Order: sequence, then structure tokens, then C-alpha cells
Amino acid sequence: MRNIVVTDPPRADAGDAEALGRFGVATVHEALGRVGYLGPELRPAWPGARIGGTAVTVLCWPGDNLMIHVAVEQCRPGDVLVVATNSPSTDGLFGELFATALAHRGVRGVVLGCGVRDVAELREMGFPAWSRAVSAQGSVKATAGAVNVPVVLGGQTISPGDVVVADDDGVLVVPRGDVPRALTASQARIEKEAASRAAFQEGQLGLDRYGLRDELPRFGLEYVSYQTWAGER
Amino acid sequence: MRNIVVTDPPRADAGDAEALGRFGVATVHEALGRVGYLGPELRPAWPGARIGGTAVTVLCWPGDNLMIHVAVEQCRPGDVLVVATNSPSTDGLFGELFATALAHRGVRGVVLGCGVRDVAELREMGFPAWSRAVSAQGSVKATAGAVNVPVVLGGQTISPGDVVVADDDGVLVVPRGDVPRALTASQARIEKEAASRAAFQEGQLGLDRYGLRDELPRFGLEYVSYQTWAGER
Amino acid sequence: MRNIVVTDPPRADAGDAEALGRFGVATVHEALGRVGYLGPELRPAWPGARIGGTAVTVLCWPGDNLMIHVAVEQCRPGDVLVVATNSPSTDGLFGELFATALAHRGVRGVVLGCGVRDVAELREMGFPAWSRAVSAQGSVKATAGAVNVPVVLGGQTISPGDVVVADDDGVLVVPRGDVPRALTASQARIEKEAASRAAFQEGQLGLDRYGLRDELPRFGLEYVSYQTWAGER
Amino acid sequence: MRNIVVTDPPRADAGDAEALGRFGVATVHEALGRVGYLGPELRPAWPGARIGGTAVTVLCWPGDNLMIHVAVEQCRPGDVLVVATNSPSTDGLFGELFATALAHRGVRGVVLGCGVRDVAELREMGFPAWSRAVSAQGSVKATAGAVNVPVVLGGQTISPGDVVVADDDGVLVVPRGDVPRALTASQARIEKEAASRAAFQEGQLGLDRYGLRDELPRFGLEYVSYQTWAGER
Amino acid sequence: MRNIVVTDPPRADAGDAEALGRFGVATVHEALGRVGYLGPELRPAWPGARIGGTAVTVLCWPGDNLMIHVAVEQCRPGDVLVVATNSPSTDGLFGELFATALAHRGVRGVVLGCGVRDVAELREMGFPAWSRAVSAQGSVKATAGAVNVPVVLGGQTISPGDVVVADDDGVLVVPRGDVPRALTASQARIEKEAASRAAFQEGQLGLDRYGLRDELPRFGLEYVSYQTWAGER
Amino acid sequence: MRNIVVTDPPRADAGDAEALGRFGVATVHEALGRVGYLGPELRPAWPGARIGGTAVTVLCWPGDNLMIHVAVEQCRPGDVLVVATNSPSTDGLFGELFATALAHRGVRGVVLGCGVRDVAELREMGFPAWSRAVSAQGSVKATAGAVNVPVVLGGQTISPGDVVVADDDGVLVVPRGDVPRALTASQARIEKEAASRAAFQEGQLGLDRYGLRDELPRFGLEYVSYQTWAGER
Repeated sequence: MRNIVVTDPPRADAGDAEALGRFGVATVHEALGRVGYLGPELRPAWPGARIGGTAVTVLCWPGDNLMIHVAVEQCRPGDVLVVATNSPSTDGLFGELFATALAHRGVRGVVLGCGVRDVAELREMGFPAWSRAVSAQGSVKATAGAVNVPVVLGGQTISPGDVVVADDDGVLVVPRGDVPRALTASQARIEKEAASRAAFQEGQLGLDRYGLRDELPRFGLEYVSYQTWAGER
Repeated sequence: MRNIVVTDPPRADAGDAEALGRFGVATVHEALGRVGYLGPELRPAWPGARIGGTAVTVLCWPGDNLMIHVAVEQCRPGDVLVVATNSPSTDGLFGELFATALAHRGVRGVVLGCGVRDVAELREMGFPAWSRAVSAQGSVKATAGAVNVPVVLGGQTISPGDVVVADDDGVLVVPRGDVPRALTASQARIEKEAASRAAFQEGQLGLDRYGLRDELPRFGLEYVSYQTWAGER
Repeated sequence: MRNIVVTDPPRADAGDAEALGRFGVATVHEALGRVGYLGPELRPAWPGARIGGTAVTVLCWPGDNLMIHVAVEQCRPGDVLVVATNSPSTDGLFGELFATALAHRGVRGVVLGCGVRDVAELREMGFPAWSRAVSAQGSVKATAGAVNVPVVLGGQTISPGDVVVADDDGVLVVPRGDVPRALTASQARIEKEAASRAAFQEGQLGLDRYGLRDELPRFGLEYVSYQTWAGER
Repeated sequence: MRNIVVTDPPRADAGDAEALGRFGVATVHEALGRVGYLGPELRPAWPGARIGGTAVTVLCWPGDNLMIHVAVEQCRPGDVLVVATNSPSTDGLFGELFATALAHRGVRGVVLGCGVRDVAELREMGFPAWSRAVSAQGSVKATAGAVNVPVVLGGQTISPGDVVVADDDGVLVVPRGDVPRALTASQARIEKEAASRAAFQEGQLGLDRYGLRDELPRFGLEYVSYQTWAGER
Repeated sequence: MRNIVVTDPPRADAGDAEALGRFGVATVHEALGRVGYLGPELRPAWPGARIGGTAVTVLCWPGDNLMIHVAVEQCRPGDVLVVATNSPSTDGLFGELFATALAHRGVRGVVLGCGVRDVAELREMGFPAWSRAVSAQGSVKATAGAVNVPVVLGGQTISPGDVVVADDDGVLVVPRGDVPRALTASQARIEKEAASRAAFQEGQLGLDRYGLRDELPRFGLEYVSYQTWAGER
Repeated sequence: MRNIVVTDPPRADAGDAEALGRFGVATVHEALGRVGYLGPELRPAWPGARIGGTAVTVLCWPGDNLMIHVAVEQCRPGDVLVVATNSPSTDGLFGELFATALAHRGVRGVVLGCGVRDVAELREMGFPAWSRAVSAQGSVKATAGAVNVPVVLGGQTISPGDVVVADDDGVLVVPRGDVPRALTASQARIEKEAASRAAFQEGQLGLDRYGLRDELPRFGLEYVSYQTWAGER
């Protein structure tokens, strides 16, 4: 592993990141063609937050948060801190003091492939965090890692400057180059969903709205009354 | 797997299902002799809901929600949608739009052996969901399955028309034929528990209330003072 | 396994236990040199509680809560009940009725290596519980175990009379003999953290506050501009 | 749970069960339309066994093997013992002495939803076992359960007398009524697979053999040379 | 955590340890009253080894094997190295070179709460290892820990000089003070098991041999013929 | 997800890949600076294989092996097939017939982020496979994916043409551009390890060989005799 801090990577536009955040994880994920989701293991430390920001990435040794200290200095308003460890660990590398420092710098939240602690304090501060675990286990500062290199988290590659969207459904990455397309496609999807929602509230069925009913025979689906079915058993 | 939709299965009485829902999962589980619980992996998407309803069952291919579209049409007021996948999957096959359609039809909630998404929206709508995971991962509609056949979820067999009870403790199935017994036994248990609660609030011990104290010698249990015990080590 | 109930073990001072509870899990864990944490698998049944108390320990057979009935009688005001099973189990050995009995005795909460049930009722009562699972699965009363012997939970040994601290970050044990040191060190840490918090709110960096900046060369860390880094790839 | 021993349930034909065993898990699973597999968590205690037999089912309390003692008496030549626990447990309810007793009765193997022990001895005896865990943890004999009632294991319902097939790929259940169809379909599949194997050994592609190549456009699949693809990035 | 190496702890007798090893994990576990088993997560790196030795304990930081280097020097013939990490980690802290050094010193094997690597080489050397994971992930040497202090592994406390028994069923600890009792009780159990084995080979049933048949009514167990049972459903 | 097959990606040299395979996973991982390991969850289907080859990558929908059929045609002698699914799945997408087709094309093995089946047959054929699970669960061919695009597996990005090394320790990726460095560094490491092995066989300690002894005071490590330590407790 090269022990390196990459400074001033280009970021996606902060306003665009915020706009994607407002759309939410599920919408942007679908809009981009069902890609970029970091999976069900990254959960919010407290419910109800929804953010979008630009990634500052950190790669830490397990049980060691030295590089988060290094990374704080690289953060700007509108960023989201993204912390990976280079092997599986649940230790709580991040807590309230880091959140205080990041909030001062205008950072919108943190995503951790390991653990988070001070959950009650983070909730009270309103500082959002997503992580694989909640753990009070403390860290040393003994081994270097890297800041602002591409990291893999939840099966996705996150490069510095990419947009990170996170809410109660988990975390999504939008590569910097895909942001314009994500904005347009999310807006289109939100409109389409609003129309579907209105239709469903009136009682229309997805089978009809999405043209699935005509395709059912192709799937070999039979409809059988309960009486017939029960009689055949 | 037979690709089949069984229509109009007989359901347990909707009022009975609602009554069992009011008793809650732990009470009905105990009342029936400690059976029917779907295990600790099915968790509520948001806390505080408590429901009882009649099962409409769905069997989906992993990553594919085609059959949920088919199942919506089979739902009636008082039903609970129960979704199994035929191999392990955490994908978010169900979200807010399905909830909108089901709410219109009077469905009381959903139980998923896979993932759920749009958690913030479901909480806001007050539509209850229990699932093995929260995941924004989207689905295709490419492979058929079945609706209203018996499915296995959390180690329990759920047949269409059975009663499903769910709350913060998880999910329980009551086979349709056991509903009358469940109602009677749950009512008896709730009364017994109320008496125990009152006794415990006054300071009575379970050892005495349940007649356990006299049985302790049979278990070979010794009482030793700390001093004696510490001296023996 | 010796089937034994040890009576009247010496406890840490109840006021000291309460004071450690107010410091919280992460603070006391760090103050003692990063020891005693029961790991990320023990989670609160409902968010927001923070307690400190003296341990009454119970060792149960999986699926059997007989010994909890025995243990209730051994509890005093200021205690925390700590329940281990002698092999892995998620069954819900503890619920609202036990909580009622313990609340009457002035017990501050429960920590379970297995499952808990009646979560909605516990939240309503304000009785705090930490456990490895939420499960409605009921228990028998058929096999003896032990009360007030040392148990292992979450990789930590807990002896009767030790202090247990628990909050949204999980659960911590402080051996009875370490309580005075824990109090002093926690007070010192809270003051140091308050100073750091104030400094971070003003914009100071951890790199500077903790003297890490001068040590970075020792770690072999290089700073490279994005342009240089991107050019090298 | 009703504490019951059902005696002399009808079994599938022992020769048919043995024949299905020779086909193996994957072949019979496919032949029946991809149903009946107990999932990846049930693993062989030692590699290389392949069996088919008729199920004698047991439902035990976790940590308690009383009912296995009861079940041994119900076993006949050609049977496979199938043990479920009524909540999750890894305890080693079964070992070499049970295997000795079952081998004497002509039983072909054991399938356990919990743990197995004496693995070295079972391997030496050549007695096959599949289980969710290997665990030396011992059991009590304190709580009743049931023998020869339908049990759920690995998401499948297994009734007494059903055929159980098991090998290095795991465990499969064939409901008694499906055995004739399973035999015919497995024989057909084995012949089809032999033809495919021969073709693949000669270099034919599955794309051509299964007629998939013509369907690829329907899936929207594009072929792009590396040069073009790399140029577009 | 106190960073300490405790030198020359008293060990259980090496011959006694070896004798317990020959009895094997399941036998000694039962003989001692079903205590001391480290659970199903510690698995052998290769099948077929069975050892008994005296523990030299190590506590490492996750991802850091510095203390194993320190511990090698503390090992003597007949020892077993026992490595715990102070938070969950799967990293491969131990491999072939350590095994070479330990084999030279007459050490009988290693037990790791984390990962092991060089599995093929260990199998070829015949050096036994039990671990929670196999992982090639390499380590740093940057943070101190402890040698020969009590550690917790798999829910058991292991003190230096205790006997560790390990085979294909996992790992067991016998506290130094319990070794004489373990030897006697294991010998008795092995004789009792030999008699039971012989009886089972002749067709006796456990129900009769262990006097369970007369107790069945107490458990409320009913015997029902299949015909009656099927008729009642 | 773009549904695309990238044809004829440049590969690392086949001889170099084979040479890296001979070094093995742990050696190459260390030689490159402890990077590229796919983690402890990818396990060999049978023990004893050790390979190196060039990656052909596949991205499949869960439960669907259509794209493996497409990928076979893209494979050449010296390749290793690498299969990822775009959400978590254990289904057995690969078995003996695919192995037959790949063996004909000179492919050296397969790495699967999901399940494998026909384990007995693969072992008999000597076709190596690494996977997250063994599962007989069968697949459909209903949804497209991609071939020869970068995939993420076990937290590592694998691009087509990269070298994949796999043995009993798991799986490692060496990016194509790093192959020359990997060869040189692995050769150097193997020589260094041979020297260390010889020294350890003679009884030298790692503490001395690696110059750690002089650094121990920096870590604050104390040596205390057992008597002193026991006296202080």
C-alpha cells in the first residue's frame, strides 16, 4: 500500500451533490440503471438523515484512526468523509470529536466501512453517520494509510470527488463523471414516480401501468382457483 | 417450481386477525405453545407498528419483483403481503410505490424474506414492513414465481389465508385452523400476565408465583454464600 | 458446570456505578486504556438509555430462563442483570414481566448474551435492555445453571459486583477493583475532551492538537498534489 | 408444540431413495424444477459421501438431544435421520455413539440443523453427516419435542418418509409423492448432461448448444472491442 | 491494556496435557461437566490433527503480529500458542515461518482467534492450527499487547499454563487446577463410552441403556400411529 | 448497468501469471506491499490447488448464469474466470459442465463471488474453484450483465487481463501493470523467506532476525516474572 495523501482532488459540484442528496439513494440508484449501491451492511447510526456530498476518501489500518486525523485537514464544505479499512474490522474509528471538527469545516456526514461510536452524541449534534457497526472500541495511531485514493466500500469503488448520497436506505456512490446524467435521470424518475404514485393512490395496478399483464403468458404463469388447486393436491 | 397464481384462497376472519394483532407476537406465540415465530432475523423497518392480518403469499426469484406486481391484484382489505425468495437475497424488492398500491387496497403491512427500501417514506406513510434487510438494490421483472402457495419464511410454513402477527418483536404465523384456539388462549394468557404483572409490581417473585422454589432441589441447585464460595476457590 | 447460586457478593459502590454510567461507555473504555468493551453485537433494544450499575450475573442453558427467575431474588437497587447462555442462542429469555419485577427491586437494566422480547413494552416502561438479538421465541424452565459466578459475555469476563456501563454504543464492564481508577481517569478524560471539543469548534486540527503532524514523516507519509498523482497513473 | 412420536409413517421406496442418491443433489434439484434444496449452510462433516434415504424427522429443543434417543427406535434400514431444533442453535447434539446405534439399524446418514461432533470418528466409521456447524458442545435430556412430524430445515419442509439426498453440494428433499417424477426426470437429465459434457469436451459452446446466441439481442447485449471500449472511457 | 510479558508461568504437566489430547475435545468436555469448549467458530486449518498442550497466551492488536514474535521466545516443548486479538479481526497473523520457529521449540500447535495463512504449507509440515478464519492478509508490527496474561477466546478464559485440547471438533481449555480431575473423569468416560458403543453395536437402544424410557411420560410424550395422526389433521 | 461484452482485452503474459501462481497468494500479497487480497470469504471448493492466470471477468444478476455462457466464448488458454454478482447471492451459478467447457479451452480455474456446485465432480476433474459458498441452487438465464468490465470482488477491483493467483489461502489480484514488479518482489521475498526458514529451523528468533528486540522498549513493553505478576494481583 502506498502511504500517500492526494491533495485537492477535483470534486463534483457541491450544489449538484446536494441536489442528488435530496433525490435520495433509491431514486438515484434506479435512475443510473441500478448501479452504485454500497449494500445493506452500511446502516445509519440514527434514523432520518438524508445527505449528498463529495467524497474525501481515507484508507485506514484496522484499529487505527491516524489517517482520519490526516484526512480532516483535506475536507471542505460540502464534502462527505468516506473511511475504508484494508481488512475487515468493526472498531469504532470515528466519534463525536471528529464530528465536531468536520462540522466546523462544513462536512455533511461520514461513511465508515468499520464502526462508529458516540452514537447518542452524533444524534444530538445532528451529524449523520453510516457504518458497518456501532462499536466503542478505541483506536491507536500507529500505522499509515492513504487519503484521497480510490477505495472499495460495500463492493463499490469510490474515488475522491465522487458524489456520495446516503439516507435510511443506505449509501450510494455516483462517479463524478456521471453526475450530470444522474441529475437528469433522477429528475425524470421522480416525475415518473409521482405519476405512478398518483395512479396507485387511485387504484391502478402495476400490472397494467407497466404493461406487465400482457407479458405474463410469456413467463408461463397460470391462474388457478383455490378450489381447483386444493383439489389437485 | 410451478409458476402459478392461486386465486381467492379462503382467509381467516379479518376481525380475528386484527384481534390477534392487538395481542402481539410474544403473547400469541406463548399462547399457542411456543410455535410459529419467524425468528430474530426479520426486523421492522421502523419501530412501533403492531398488526395482524391474513397472508397473501408470494414466491419471487432473487433480485426480481415481478411476482409482487402480480400479487398486489390478489390482495384485499385486512391482508398482509408475505414475500419469500427461493434462495437467499437481500435485494430491496419492495418500496414506497408498492406500499401506496397496497394501502389503497386496505393491506395492513408487508413481511419480506429479502430487503425493503424507501424506509423513510414508509415510516412517514405509516405503512409497516418487516424484512431481513434494508437495501436500495433494485429489481428486474424477468422470471416468474408463484402467488398464494405455501411458502417457508424464517423456518415457518405460511399458507395463504393464515394469520400473520407482527410487531417490534418480529413476525408470527398462526395457521388458519388454529385461529380460534389462538384467540382464546391469548385472551387467557393476557389475563394471567396482567395478574402476574400486578403481583410483580407488588414485589412477589416468579420463584414463588410459578411454584419454582420447591422444584429447585430437583435441579441440584446449591445456594452458597459469597464468603464460602470465595474461600473454596 | 456447577449449579450454584452465590449469595450476597460484594458490589462496587452504587453511587460510583451511577457516576460511571453518566460518563458513558466510550469515555470509560478509553479512560481505562481501551479495555472492557463487550463488542458491537450487544445492541440496545431501544435508543437513548445510558446506565451504570453493579452486575448480578446469570448463566442459563440455551432456550431456558429458569435461572433468571432464581437471579431476580438476588438483585438489589442499583444492580444490572447480566445474562449469559452457555452456548450460542438468540432466544428471547427476558421480557416485560421480568422487567416489572426488576424495576420493583430498583434494578437499572439488563444485558443479555441471547435475545430479548416485549421490546415495545420495555421502551414504554423505560426499562433499558441490551442484547444480541430481539426474539419472541419463548423458553422452558428445565435445566439449572448458575447465579453470581463469573461469566464471559462479548469476550469479557464479568464478575458479580463489577460495574456495568451501557448506552447506545454498547456495554462495558469495569472490574470492581478498577472502579476508583475508572472514576478518576474518566473525569480527567471528560475534561480533556471538553477542551478538545472547544478547540475543534474553533477550527483547530487533531493533527496539531495531538502533535501528530511532526510524526507523519516517521510513518513514511507523502503528500502529492492530485495533478502529480493523476499524471503518474 | 405438540410432544408426539408418530410411529410407522409410510416411506418412499428404499430402492428409489438409493437411486436418487446416486444421481446426486444438483441433478435431482434441477430435474424437479429447481426446488427442494436446503441451502448452503448445511455442510458435510467430511467430504466424499453421497447418499439417498427416507426421512425420519426429529424436532429438538436447543441444547437437548432427548428426542434423538427417542427417534433412534423409529429408524429402519434405508432411513436418514433429520434433526431440526425449534430455535437457532449450533450445539453438537449428535456424535459417534448415535452413529453407532444408527449404523446398526441400517440408517444411511444424518442431517442436522444444529451441530455435529466426533467428526474424526464419523469420518473413520464412514458414517455421513451434514450439519450447520461442528461443535463439541454437549447436550441435556430435559425437554420433549417430536418425532416424525413435518419439520422445516434450510427453508424446506421435510415430512417423514420423504426422500433426502445429500452429497458434497449439500442436502435436498424430495417429497414422497414426487419420487417417481424425480427418478424419471433425473434419468433424463443425466442423459442430457452426458450429451452436453461430450459436446463441451469437443469444444461446443453453451451459447450454441442451448440456443442462447440468437436470444442475446433480446437482452440488449452489445459486443464492443477492447479498443473501442477503452477509447470511450 | 497493560503491555506486559509474564515470564515462566507455571504449566500443567506436559504428559498430562498430552494424555488429555489423546482423549479428544468431546470426551474431555463431557467429562468435566460440559464446560470449556471454545465454540464452533474455531476450525482446524487442515483435518485430522489431535493435540493437547500447555497454553502460552498472546494478546495482539488487530492486523498486528508483533506480540507473536515476542511470544515465540516464551514457548517451551509441549506448549500450544494461543493468540487472541483485542477486537474482532480475521487477518492472517500466523503462517509457515512462525510454525517453523515453534516446531523447533517443540510447540504442538497454535490456536488463533483471528486468521491463519500458509495453510498448504502447514498441512505439509504437519503443524496443527485452529483459527476463526483462513486469510492471507498480512500484518504490521506497530502496537504492543501482552504475553501470558489470561485471554478470552470463544467465550472461554484461557490462562497461561492451562491445558488446551484441540481436534476436528474444535478447541477446549482445561484450567490447570482441573487437570487431575479431567484425566480421571475422561478415563472413566472413555470406558463408559466403550461399553455403550459395544452395546449399541449389538442393537441396544439409548432409551433403555440410559433409563430414559421410564421417564418419557414425565415429559408428556405421546406415541401415535401415523394413521391416527394423519386422520386427526 | 451497461450490458456489454468487451472482446479481446489485453492480458498479462500467461507465463508471468503462471509464475506468480507458483509463488502463491501469501507471498505475492506480501511482496506487493500487502495489497490485492480478496479476503477470507472466498474459499477453495477442494483443498490443494494453486494457480495463476489472467482474468476474464463476468458480472451476473443474482440467480442467473446467462453471462457465464457468454463469457466462456471469451476465454483463452491461461485465463481464470472471475464471476461477480451485482448483489449478494450464494446460488451455485457454476458447476461441472461449465468446468468441462473451460478445461477444453485451457482455462485454469474459476473464482466466484457467489456459489459453486458439483464439488465432488470438480475435485475429481481437478478443476479448481474458489467461491463464497457451495450451493446446488440452480439458475435461470433471464437477465443480461457484462463480460470483461472491471468488477469488484472481496473488496478488490479486478480488471480483465489482470493476474489472479489462488490457493488454499484464498484469492489475490495483481493488476496487469504491477506484474513485473510482483515477479521481482516475489522472487526476492521467497529468497528472504528461505533464509529466515533456515535460520528458524536452527533456532534463531524473529525478535533477533528482524531487529525487533531493540525496539521493544519503544512499545512500552515490560517483562515481569510470573511470581511478581501473580503477587501484584
